[in-house]
Order: sequence, then structure tokens, then C-alpha cells
Amino acid sequence: IRSKLPEASPSIFAQMTQLAHQHDALNLSQGFPSFPASQELKELASQAIIDNNNQYAPMMGVPVLRVAISQMFEEQHKAFYHPQEEICVTAGATQGIFTAIQATIFKGDEMIIFTPAYDCYEPAIKIAGGIPVKIPMQLPEFTIDWEQVRSSVSTKTKMILINSPHNPSGKLLTHKDMLELENIAVQNDLIVLSDEVYEHMIFDGREHLSASRYPALKERSFITGSFGKTFHVTGWKTGFCLAPQPLMKEFLKIHQQVVFCVNNPMQQAVATYLQSPKHYQELGKFYQRKRDLFLNLIKNSKFKFKPTESTYFQLLDYSAVTDDGDIAFAKALTIDHKLASIPISVFMEGRDPKMLRFCFAKEDEELVAAAKILNEL
Amino acid sequence: IRSKLPEASPSIFAQMTQLAHQHDALNLSQGFPSFPASQELKELASQAIIDNNNQYAPMMGVPVLRVAISQMFEEQHKAFYHPQEEICVTAGATQGIFTAIQATIFKGDEMIIFTPAYDCYEPAIKIAGGIPVKIPMQLPEFTIDWEQVRSSVSTKTKMILINSPHNPSGKLLTHKDMLELENIAVQNDLIVLSDEVYEHMIFDGREHLSASRYPALKERSFITGSFGKTFHVTGWKTGFCLAPQPLMKEFLKIHQQVVFCVNNPMQQAVATYLQSPKHYQELGKFYQRKRDLFLNLIKNSKFKFKPTESTYFQLLDYSAVTDDGDIAFAKALTIDHKLASIPISVFMEGRDPKMLRFCFAKEDEELVAAAKILNEL
Ligand SMILES: CSCCC(=O)C(=O)O
Ligand SMILES: CSCCC(=O)C(=O)O
Repeated sequence: IRSKLPEASPSIFAQMTQLAHQHDALNLSQGFPSFPASQELKELASQAIIDNNNQYAPMMGVPVLRVAISQMFEEQHKAFYHPQEEICVTAGATQGIFTAIQATIFKGDEMIIFTPAYDCYEPAIKIAGGIPVKIPMQLPEFTIDWEQVRSSVSTKTKMILINSPHNPSGKLLTHKDMLELENIAVQNDLIVLSDEVYEHMIFDGREHLSASRYPALKERSFITGSFGKTFHVTGWKTGFCLAPQPLMKEFLKIHQQVVFCVNNPMQQAVATYLQSPKHYQELGKFYQRKRDLFLNLIKNSKFKFKPTESTYFQLLDYSAVTDDGDIAFAKALTIDHKLASIPISVFMEGRDPKMLRFCFAKEDEELVAAAKILNEL
Repeated sequence: IRSKLPEASPSIFAQMTQLAHQHDALNLSQGFPSFPASQELKELASQAIIDNNNQYAPMMGVPVLRVAISQMFEEQHKAFYHPQEEICVTAGATQGIFTAIQATIFKGDEMIIFTPAYDCYEPAIKIAGGIPVKIPMQLPEFTIDWEQVRSSVSTKTKMILINSPHNPSGKLLTHKDMLELENIAVQNDLIVLSDEVYEHMIFDGREHLSASRYPALKERSFITGSFGKTFHVTGWKTGFCLAPQPLMKEFLKIHQQVVFCVNNPMQQAVATYLQSPKHYQELGKFYQRKRDLFLNLIKNSKFKFKPTESTYFQLLDYSAVTDDGDIAFAKALTIDHKLASIPISVFMEGRDPKMLRFCFAKEDEELVAAAKILNEL
């Protein structure tokens, strides 16, 4: 039968996690916490189930959760989103991203993404019949050349996707970047999809400049977020999408057909947990400590690095260890040394800066064990 | 901005449920149970959360659940689906239906659906760029004229969707229907999407003839199911899709982009609960009792009916009560008499057989109260 995505293969995250299992390797590949979520949050969800919150939630999400999300954006970015018209709870950020793209991209429309790019963007554009226009970020700093963006915009360009905090590099867009983006988007009447799922994992006193902070951007942007990432429950598949009313209206038409609504008891639990801003405000400190623990232990190894600015990912430059390509080295490291990571060339069309991505959302002992392996190479 | 679904409006289920809330009416409109799910199932899910099953599930679903689904189809239909290659857990049947359609329908492809049709089919076809070809079921029995189907097949026809047990009529396709379908599908090399979400709510000793029972159909069919409906937890958004490997391969490419995976703790709970066949085998008896309770109470009312063969929906013919159209009467019944139902003309392009759909997945007292209202009309 004819295929919508002829070239699709299992995701690198599934592949590396499977290889890790096969070889009993420490798994620092796929991004998910190896430690438990908070007892309080788990009990809230358990209780929501026992209390019979088990039937359909409203299509946009349970009202208290939408109010709590609105308050979080006021609190963090002084940005107002109307809980009843501009906020939709999604089955994870993936569904939010997929839905925003289906709602806006028509056959032949171009959509700009920056590589390395998280692996769900390009297929979602293709499913919509759109054309991904890939602009390589500049190495070694993973920066965006806005002149190149300007010259890549055509009359067919409909949307630009940004991802800050950036997976896999941990790079944050600067205020200057955001102004450039705003300028280009406004001048060319483009929609923006801002994937901000690592919004709360920001280190060294830096700031996350959400698209919601720039009024001219905000009014033309979808913003996606993830409670799975913020609250250490990636398996709950509970995220959100924000957008001004005219965009949200189109988003909802698609959302209703994709899932109709999202898991009800999880929404109840997250809504209550989100009432305490400390539950997300302390996340940066929490992950910065893990990052520093890990990096301190490998500072005398052959691996070179710049401490990641954000996310729970750290890139390590292994060029002093081997000349192998990153896929080959990631496999060898998993099979021979029992440490799984993610090669990043798969996200950047084969460009290979000889870096592997390590997820440090892991128990301290695992980070210590991983560092030991890296130090011996 | 340009709209993918210019004519979309909030679903009739959301509309009627909202009207019911506004007017403090008994809500027999949207299909969901008003009674709690089993204590055992709720505790299984609570425990799965406490036991830290809170990170990403595998993309296709947790292995034990896929094995349990496979066993259920062996048990019920003597049909074998390979747990590792032919079964995918979905975020509700809606996501399964949406994904199957996106995986197979290309721009310009035609897809046959029968009206009255559940309201997520047509938009999903349009989102894929396909053309819904709507064939009206014949009234008053809600049967399919297979000659009309034959003459509606064109060179562009790619897929036929069937929905048995049928929402809203409760009609079951017969063995003869299934043979006709098989014949047409094979002769014209069509894919079949068989929405079987009410598979276990079968009454009066009837049988549900799953597409999985007909080998030549099975090998060209997607089948969707819903644990939300079977286990009284519509808010858990946990369903499944079955298909032979070549179809499943394309399904998974889309599924990965739509949601990546499904809520993990709910899958764990359902997997354990599904081990006991009685948990789904007793569902028919359970709902037949509710149907009979309800119908017995209104047998002397002005509403005429044939006891529904399946599902948790009962159609009532109100032509002896008023000449009003069904939308007007459904509203009046909600506002003036405090009983909400679903008008069915909205699923059949305005054809109005003067019938309303009542959901009897409700507490006995609610059915008694609803009957009282109907008897007074
Ligand atoms: C959905 S699996 C991938 C998890 C993730 O976000 C990552 O590892 O980058
Ligand atoms: C998803 S809301 C509609 C529920 C349902 O299946 C119905 O009422 O027909």
C-alpha cells in the first residue's frame, strides 16, 4: 500500500533504548527521568481515580487545569491567555505539535525548522502535505543565522518552528534572537510554533524567553508545553497548547478529531499540583545540580563540553576519543561499554559534529556510574 | 487564517451536555456511564501510579496489554493478531480512527461511510484531503443496501468504514452483510476500517460479527476498540487498533507522530483487568438489564421503539408526541422537561426520522426519572 511516510523508521529514542536493554547498558539515551515523580503528585492522581474522575474531560481540558496554566504564564512571563478560549490540554506536547501543524499547514505550504531538530517536526509537516525547509544551526554554538532565515522565506512560507530551550543542544534563544524572529514573522505574516517543553529547566541564572513575552509574536504563535517533562511523568501524556483565539479556533477543530479529549484523572492531579508555583520554579535548581554533578565527574575525561544552558540533555564532544561517526560510536559505547546515549547526526541530516547527547534526568548513582565509564575511555 | 475544516462546530455531544448542565437536566445525551468504574480497576490504576509506572510506554503500547488484547480476540473471535506486530494501543478509539484514516487516505481518495455516521469520521477524512462518500442507511431498520455500495465504488475509492455495533441505532451487521462487504472489498481491493467500540454490548443472544472473523476481510481491515467504553472509563482515553502487518506498519508511522505513546499507568491497569474474560463477557448482560429496565418503564408512553440490539444507546420514535424536528424537540425536552438526548439528524445530513437517542449507561434511578418524564409527554 502507498505510504505517507515512505522513509520512516523507528525513532532513534526507541532504537537506543532497545539496544540499551539488549546489552544491559545504562540508559542515558531517551529523555525521561529514572527517579520517581513526587509522592504528592502520584497520590493526587491515584485519588482522582478513586474519586471517580474517570469519564470524558471537556474537549479543551478540565477548567481548573486551564486556569492553572493561565496563571503559570502570568507568573512566569506576565503573559495572559484566556483559560476558556486560548488554552487546550493535549495528550503530551507531541500531540500539540502535531495538531498545530495539521491545523495550519496545507499542501505545498513551506515550514521552516532548524536542525538539529527534534524528530517529530518533519514527519508532521509531511503528513499535512507541507514542505519542511531545514535551516542548519551554526556550529559549534548552535546559533541561528537570521539572514539565512530571511533569505529562506518564500511566498509559500506559512510557519516557523522554534524550539528554545533546544533539544538536543540545550541552547536558549536570546532576546536578540526573539526580536529577529518577531521581525521576520511580522514582516512576512508567518505563524510561529514555539516548542517550549523544557521551559522550566534553565540554568546558571539564565532566563527562558518564551514567545509569549513578545506581544507581536504572541499574537501569531502556538506555544506547546509538557507536564510530563516538568513533573517527571513522561508516561502521563499530558501537555498543553496555547494560542490566540483565531489560531486556537483552528487548533481545536483538529484536536477534537485527533483525540477528542485528554486523560481526565491526570488532568485533575496536575491542576492541583500546579497551584504551587514552587513545583515548577524549583526545577532549574534541581536539574542544575544533576548537570554539575555529572560534569564535575568527567571534567578530566577526554570528553569536551560546554555546560548545557537548559533542558536535561548534555552534549559531549568525543573527538578526542575516536574518529568514528556518532552513530557507530553511540552503538559501540552501548554494546562494549554499557552506556547508551543519542547520536545527534540523525537530527541534522548527517552533519556530524562528533557529539553524543546524554540525558542527566537520572538517579545520582547512575550519573556516577556513567561518568566512570566515560573517564575510562 | 485559512481553515482545514471551515464548517466545523462544537460536537453535538458537547452542545447537548452543556445545555443539560445549563438547565439542570438529566443527561442521557453524551455516551458515558454515570456510575463508577469497578473498584478493582480503579485500584489497579492507582497502584500502577504509586508503583512508578509513570514514564513513556513503548510506542505500540505496553507488551502485557498487547498480549491481553490478542488473547481477547482469540477468545471472542478465534482471530489471531500478533502482539508485537499487529496491535497498537491508542489514546482512545478516536485517535485510532483518526490515525488509520491519515495513514491510508491521500488527497483525492474516496472513502465510503454510512449515515447516520459517528461525527469523527467525516472530518478525519477531510483532514487527510480525502472525499467522504456518504451512503444513507435505509430506514426504519438502519440497513445497508449493498447494491448501492457497489455502484458507489469508483476507481478513487480507497476505504470503506463500517461501524457495527452501530452508533446511534444499535444495529448489528449480519453474516450476510459481512459477506457482501468482504466481497466488495476484495473485488475492488479496498481497505476496511471497522469501528467496533461497542463490541461487548450485545443483547438478546445476538452475536457481534467482528471483521476479524472473516479472513479475507481481516487481512485488509483496521479494527478499532475502546477500553473506555468496555470498562466504564471513557476519561482514560485508552483504546486500540488492530491490523495486519502491512497496514499496521503504516499506521505506526503516523501514530508515532500523533501521540508517540499512550498513558502508561492506565495501560498497566487495563492489562491486568483484561486477564479475566468475565470483565468483558458480562457487559452484555449488564447493559441488557439497564435497557430492559428503561424500556419496560416507557412501554405505555407515546414513544415507540424497537429494543436496541447493541451499544448503550436506545432510539425512541417521538412522532406521536410532536411534529417538531429532532433538534428542536431535543432542545425543548432538555429545557422544558429537563431530559437531554441526542438528535440524530445531525449524523445523517438532515434526514430526520423523528427519533432521539438516549444513552442508558446511567444509574437505575436516572433511568427511572427519565422514564417518568417521557411517560408524562
Ligand atoms: C518521545 S521519546 C523521546 C524523548 C525525548 O524527548 C528525547 O529523548 O529527546
Ligand atoms: C466523545 S463524546 C461522544 C461520546 C459518544 O461516543 C457518543 O455519545 O456517541
